[in-house]
Amino acid sequence: MKILVLYGSSRRNGNSEALADHLTRGLECTRIYLADKKITPIVDKRHAPEGFSPVDDDQDEIVRQLLAHDIIIFATPLYWYGMSGQMKLFVDRWSQSLRDTRYDFKNGMAGKKAIAVIAGGDNPRIKALPLVQQFQYIFTFMGMEFAGYVLGKGGKPGEVLQDERALGEADQLRRLLCE
Amino acid sequence: MKILVLYGSSRRNGNSEALADHLTRGLECTRIYLADKKITPIVDKRHAPEGFSPVDDDQDEIVRQLLAHDIIIFATPLYWYGMSGQMKLFVDRWSQSLRDTRYDFKNGMAGKKAIAVIAGGDNPRIKALPLVQQFQYIFTFMGMEFAGYVLGKGGKPGEVLQDERALGEADQLRRLLCE
Amino acid sequence: MKILVLYGSSRRNGNSEALADHLTRGLECTRIYLADKKITPIVDKRHAPEGFSPVDDDQDEIVRQLLAHDIIIFATPLYWYGMSGQMKLFVDRWSQSLRDTRYDFKNGMAGKKAIAVIAGGDNPRIKALPLVQQFQYIFTFMGMEFAGYVLGKGGKPGEVLQDERALGEADQLRRLLCE
Amino acid sequence: MKILVLYGSSRRNGNSEALADHLTRGLECTRIYLADKKITPIVDKRHAPEGFSPVDDDQDEIVRQLLAHDIIIFATPLYWYGMSGQMKLFVDRWSQSLRDTRYDFKNGMAGKKAIAVIAGGDNPRIKALPLVQQFQYIFTFMGMEFAGYVLGKGGKPGEVLQDERALGEADQLRRLLCE
Repeated sequence: MKILVLYGSSRRNGNSEALADHLTRGLECTRIYLADKKITPIVDKRHAPEGFSPVDDDQDEIVRQLLAHDIIIFATPLYWYGMSGQMKLFVDRWSQSLRDTRYDFKNGMAGKKAIAVIAGGDNPRIKALPLVQQFQYIFTFMGMEFAGYVLGKGGKPGEVLQDERALGEADQLRRLLCE
Repeated sequence: MKILVLYGSSRRNGNSEALADHLTRGLECTRIYLADKKITPIVDKRHAPEGFSPVDDDQDEIVRQLLAHDIIIFATPLYWYGMSGQMKLFVDRWSQSLRDTRYDFKNGMAGKKAIAVIAGGDNPRIKALPLVQQFQYIFTFMGMEFAGYVLGKGGKPGEVLQDERALGEADQLRRLLCE
Repeated sequence: MKILVLYGSSRRNGNSEALADHLTRGLECTRIYLADKKITPIVDKRHAPEGFSPVDDDQDEIVRQLLAHDIIIFATPLYWYGMSGQMKLFVDRWSQSLRDTRYDFKNGMAGKKAIAVIAGGDNPRIKALPLVQQFQYIFTFMGMEFAGYVLGKGGKPGEVLQDERALGEADQLRRLLCE
Repeated sequence: MKILVLYGSSRRNGNSEALADHLTRGLECTRIYLADKKITPIVDKRHAPEGFSPVDDDQDEIVRQLLAHDIIIFATPLYWYGMSGQMKLFVDRWSQSLRDTRYDFKNGMAGKKAIAVIAGGDNPRIKALPLVQQFQYIFTFMGMEFAGYVLGKGGKPGEVLQDERALGEADQLRRLLCE
């Protein structure tokens, strides 16, 4: 089982990163930090006669990495009760990737396991639930299995490491990664 | 009551735009198309000693427009069961605007009415509900009143204009704008 | 299209009843008031070797009425942010009805249209959304189509009739009943 | 910290009971099995001039037990994506208990910690989320703190004890009970 961690935070060493790293400690993973990547906002051309224009950025490289792994961990801070804009830009572009003829993105993703790791300062165990439901719709659309999620509390960098409950829950979720 | 419509779509003449225009037809509104604006993704510096760095883009101008109106209509396509990445980039940057000393963003927004207009092709009356809940958390945080929402069905541009039910519901919501 | 209205309120002339009656005014409907019926709480015997015991109450009669109609309107007050206990008792017993060999409840319900009419005093347009999502799961399980919902505001009996927006939305939903 | 476990299942030895018992193993708790109690469905008299009529059942006794404890664990199977009808009957009657002059139910409950333990067979980690959100609204209304929840998978009695992840998460939640 090849694991990819997709870090959505705008900063390094934040809480969603720390929680995802706790979850995957000691495991071989490919790690992509979206803050280091260039992702251009989608221009929706699904219904334009000319179709989507090729975009010269890092979207394609990340999509290929997704396709090459079995478990995708979406690690994102809870920004305004949703995934980070950086991660949303990447996911929005899936509408274009779905029409990219160089690969079959939808069939390629089907059956993969998805995990969501979310950290936020404002009661994430409740207020991240709409985001969990959004992820569920996303993964269902793609035919992926939503294998689990962990919600941690933290504002200042590293604070989530004091959320013993979240760490313990991550340890439970870890079973999936070590099978 | 001064009305601002914030269009989140990546394209012109899409369904969320059509539905918002139906809602506000004949009313004086300020209209901002986020696709025409430059919004830089946030770099979270809330906990950095140096604080946020000034960013040279259109965020500040839009924030000032929000502050200058009484009713803010958030019109967004349902991209992957959430608001568009373009709109999310703008909202994410509120974390920076909240710390901008040139205005008092939070107190300035408190008490304003917010309306969400959402259009999507995949069962939006159900699958947009997590986004409605996310907006509720956002508006509650800002002390805004979530005055209403309308969910329309449409994929191809203009299709929502055949969703008679959504148009009729927008007409009901319109009462709020004409008081 | 034969229409059944299932009233879940514990009282007559309440707001969910008024809203459902506004929705169905002038249409031929069968009307069942759960407050008038005897529904025994389920005793879960799905995994007991002896199976469910027959219960002498009104569940069976109502199930037969559901099966005999094309559109089922679930009209319930928002009690504690959920459907009324009276309606929940009835739905819980579906687990028993599903195993009743005198009819094929699941196949019989599949393809029917379901509508939810919910009235409550505490911000129902937001706080009834978990109930809408619950109904979605229920109807999906049964293979029913969740054709629409209307959320009205009212505490004192009749108050919902001043919620012009809800009445107007019910008028939109009414299109489905008159096709 | 005095702990009360309120079991909502219609049967003994079910999965929500097993999960709650795992959570509270070795701790002193008061345990109430709603299936053993008589709870009459509410008749909503909030707006009737005569007010609520006294009801001769077990509601009052259970309310007094709630008031006498610090942590209330709501253990319920996920019946049709909601709490059991038995538990809903009890909660619905809170509208009457709030008006009972023999105690001050609302002030008495304020500040208590609430925990939800939910077990179900159909993807409870996702499909119980509307119920979690409903509990959140209930506890917020009562001024209670929603201290945590655990969602376990199980259909046949005892099956949840094979959901190692849920058991592990219950162990994390247990920290709250042992403080």
